[in-house]
Amino acid sequence: MEPTEPPEGTPDAKGTGRRGRLSARRKARQDATAVPAAQPQRPRAQPVRRFPATPIVSEDALEAIHQASLTILEDLGIEFLGPRALDCLKAGGADVSGQMVRFDRALVDRHLKTVPETFTLHARNPDNNLVFGGHHVAFCMVASAPNVSGLDGGRRSGNQKDFRNLVRLGQSLNVIHMIAGYPVEPIDLPPRTRHLDCVADNIRLTDKPLYGYALGAERIHDSLEMTRIALGLTEAQVRDRPCLTTVINANSPRRYDGPMTDGLMAMAEAGQVNVITPFTLAGAMAPVTVAGAVAQQNAEALAGIVLAQMVRPGAPVVYGGFTSNVDMRSGAPAFGTPEYMQSSLLTGQLIRRYRMPYRSSNASTGNAVDAQAAYESVFSLWGAVMGGAHMIKHAAGWMEGGLCANYEKVILDAELLQTVAAFLDPIAVDEPSLALSAQREVAPGGHFFGAEHTKARYATAFYDPILSNWQGYEAWLEDGMPEAAGRANAIAKRLLAEYQPPPLDPAIDAELEAFVARRKAEGGVSE
Amino acid sequence: MEPTEPPEGTPDAKGTGRRGRLSARRKARQDATAVPAAQPQRPRAQPVRRFPATPIVSEDALEAIHQASLTILEDLGIEFLGPRALDCLKAGGADVSGQMVRFDRALVDRHLKTVPETFTLHARNPDNNLVFGGHHVAFCMVASAPNVSGLDGGRRSGNQKDFRNLVRLGQSLNVIHMIAGYPVEPIDLPPRTRHLDCVADNIRLTDKPLYGYALGAERIHDSLEMTRIALGLTEAQVRDRPCLTTVINANSPRRYDGPMTDGLMAMAEAGQVNVITPFTLAGAMAPVTVAGAVAQQNAEALAGIVLAQMVRPGAPVVYGGFTSNVDMRSGAPAFGTPEYMQSSLLTGQLIRRYRMPYRSSNASTGNAVDAQAAYESVFSLWGAVMGGAHMIKHAAGWMEGGLCANYEKVILDAELLQTVAAFLDPIAVDEPSLALSAQREVAPGGHFFGAEHTKARYATAFYDPILSNWQGYEAWLEDGMPEAAGRANAIAKRLLAEYQPPPLDPAIDAELEAFVARRKAEGGVSE
Repeated sequence: MEPTEPPEGTPDAKGTGRRGRLSARRKARQDATAVPAAQPQRPRAQPVRRFPATPIVSEDALEAIHQASLTILEDLGIEFLGPRALDCLKAGGADVSGQMVRFDRALVDRHLKTVPETFTLHARNPDNNLVFGGHHVAFCMVASAPNVSGLDGGRRSGNQKDFRNLVRLGQSLNVIHMIAGYPVEPIDLPPRTRHLDCVADNIRLTDKPLYGYALGAERIHDSLEMTRIALGLTEAQVRDRPCLTTVINANSPRRYDGPMTDGLMAMAEAGQVNVITPFTLAGAMAPVTVAGAVAQQNAEALAGIVLAQMVRPGAPVVYGGFTSNVDMRSGAPAFGTPEYMQSSLLTGQLIRRYRMPYRSSNASTGNAVDAQAAYESVFSLWGAVMGGAHMIKHAAGWMEGGLCANYEKVILDAELLQTVAAFLDPIAVDEPSLALSAQREVAPGGHFFGAEHTKARYATAFYDPILSNWQGYEAWLEDGMPEAAGRANAIAKRLLAEYQPPPLDPAIDAELEAFVARRKAEGGVSE
Repeated sequence: MEPTEPPEGTPDAKGTGRRGRLSARRKARQDATAVPAAQPQRPRAQPVRRFPATPIVSEDALEAIHQASLTILEDLGIEFLGPRALDCLKAGGADVSGQMVRFDRALVDRHLKTVPETFTLHARNPDNNLVFGGHHVAFCMVASAPNVSGLDGGRRSGNQKDFRNLVRLGQSLNVIHMIAGYPVEPIDLPPRTRHLDCVADNIRLTDKPLYGYALGAERIHDSLEMTRIALGLTEAQVRDRPCLTTVINANSPRRYDGPMTDGLMAMAEAGQVNVITPFTLAGAMAPVTVAGAVAQQNAEALAGIVLAQMVRPGAPVVYGGFTSNVDMRSGAPAFGTPEYMQSSLLTGQLIRRYRMPYRSSNASTGNAVDAQAAYESVFSLWGAVMGGAHMIKHAAGWMEGGLCANYEKVILDAELLQTVAAFLDPIAVDEPSLALSAQREVAPGGHFFGAEHTKARYATAFYDPILSNWQGYEAWLEDGMPEAAGRANAIAKRLLAEYQPPPLDPAIDAELEAFVARRKAEGGVSE
């Protein structure tokens, strides 16, 4: 197709004849088509923390918190509402009295010994496999928000269109390592088959590790079968290969409901990953002190972890820490607070004692993509990263204390996560990086812009942001004073426009479609 | 004056007669007048970090950087443009060749041994004395910005009115421990006497520690005499009591100018605090690698520190780390970047080896009080705090990479600093805080709002923010969707309205006035 004629007066640097100009422009366009300049971002990779996590209390204080949680488990007990869990706990040697379950210290200790310190979570694209544990870090998309906002629409209830767009963003952003739940709950889909559509979407729209919700065993069995199909595994193979993750929440204080533990047990039986996460808001569902809230969190988490190990010794688990505080005037949850940071570090310190992977979150309360949303998120990440967290949930797009997923916040958070990932990159310290050759090149009071040492490295020397604007004030003024939220909107649109679904074997696609159709015909899950 | 009649239908809980209602309302108003509810904030106190700072490279790598900086000092040298500094360095045993000064390893090592590991900086109000070193942290106001913006005015050149207002904010905010420079340069004041007006303002408008600019020895002598008067000390006493601080910048790479080192020497002679701070932007005034830029920073800082120790062994110094990177596309400085964070941690690790106080900064590039300004600042604070910084300059109000001071950014930063300070508070771990009594009070699935343990503690249990808005979305919507920058504006106005100058002995005030009048009559400094 002939390119459009340039309007009269269009600048043309070369000043060649019309034919020459057109053919140069055509060539430039062909080059651009061949290698479209996609949104620049860091390459896919899991960050690895190379410095020690920060201990925030003394060893004595840590021991006291550990002992307080064991006292809660031994003397007060945890209530389990599910009959299957109660049977399993009784058989495993816990003291079961009605729905109250007490765990003596030796029992807890024995079962903590079988928890894997580290494991690999498999994705349908092996390039996206994740290491959990060690010093590896994985960032997950916002999950489970009931509402969604942004990308030029106002705040609205969760729905499939936004669900899919947010999943696409999670796939496009290299710094997001897994989706880990529905970014927003698609309430326009029927509850009994919603998980089928959502897991199928996650398989087709992404090639990162998969997630199922543990609302009873049936949803887990469906999600696991779809994961098996997506990864091309046999039923035997899938039992020895962690490839599905779920989050198990306690109903704090000191209670697990039946569907959750049914899901937990189904996951553990299948050798899949339970992220066991009490949600202990100090002052509301937990004591009003950091030490007391973390002691309760620890008792609840250990109870769930012991149950998983009773079901299958060695079942992969992640200890989820989610202790924050409430605003004592309103009862509203608060995140990114000093107490949240302290709890994140304290939880990490406890978990290093137990030698298992640690899940934290990028949590914020802000209602707008403004300074507050940003600082609450960075403070949350500070707590998580320095606490040694391995899995950071809700890492991109969480707003309003989890009540809303937001497109522009996804981009803001992607900038934060890329910054953290680049901060975690090793600092090269060797003869070339120490740069004595550059010092010899440049005279006192001179500059390094033109030094050979600089020219050889400048293109990749520093982190290249996706959102930050480093314009001087005058240029920024001329540009219309763009603020971060507006720039994030444009980047989200660009990523969605550039989105390409990852390749999927047509045979797998067909098998998946057949499974979903069959389960839908059966009516989905029974409740 | 009679209170306004309440409109018909105004709810009145008690349902008493009109007279009773009015008199109750009058009483409430009188109570409010008697004890005006000032802007709530944390009490004055210097935060103390109780956890270890983070080492970011191996001991071997640290040694390699240390050795590279010693090689720069020994083989390449640092240029000093000031004749007094050259004389002093030569007399002290350095190898002086023209303006180039080389320091052998043994010489550097010997002079590092006399640097105090910790000292107290005295204020005219002893409650505001600061500990430098150990695990103490001090936050300083933005300094040296040529422009100012916010509080409803657009961006404008620095001037005395804004200078004074920003100094007042720095006095009012408990989390600001010292002003440490002119928050904005009052260019409407004549340069030769500007320091007299500014130091006098700092003495009268605040009772926190004082600062003088080291542009030659004369300004230092004037500033020190005013400080002596303000603190009511004799000339002999002031020489043994650190009470004045200045920042000494190198003209990186590898050069100190004459007025700066004249100021440094005057400060060191008087036993006052030199904060020796190379400004090493990787890729511009320093090599394009973090290790190379920090090695150069280290060489420059150690050269200045050695000079101070040659002038007076044991002179208090602070090692200022200010390594960041430039945007390699535009050459513009960038702050709060991953490289900035890495440099902050690496600098702290080096300084712990030398056992001296460490100065870092809360730096950001943002042009607006938006998400970017917030995240760059928190990332900067993350680097500073985990790097073990003792003095954090530009901690409140820095914008545009230092080219502008901003009122709303002061409040945003005050929220960040208060959060950091509360995060650094010790976590209580004892029987009451472990809260087993509360666990016994609350049944599984219950809540802790009404527990005795909660009721005894809720009022002071958690950090109470000054800027963060924890409203639910609906309430926030009804309130007109206030964003952080707008809320910060209202808080800055309130603080200025509530500002009260700290008491000053009239005799001191008169002596200060006479000194300023005499020095103005003399024409101020000679250049």
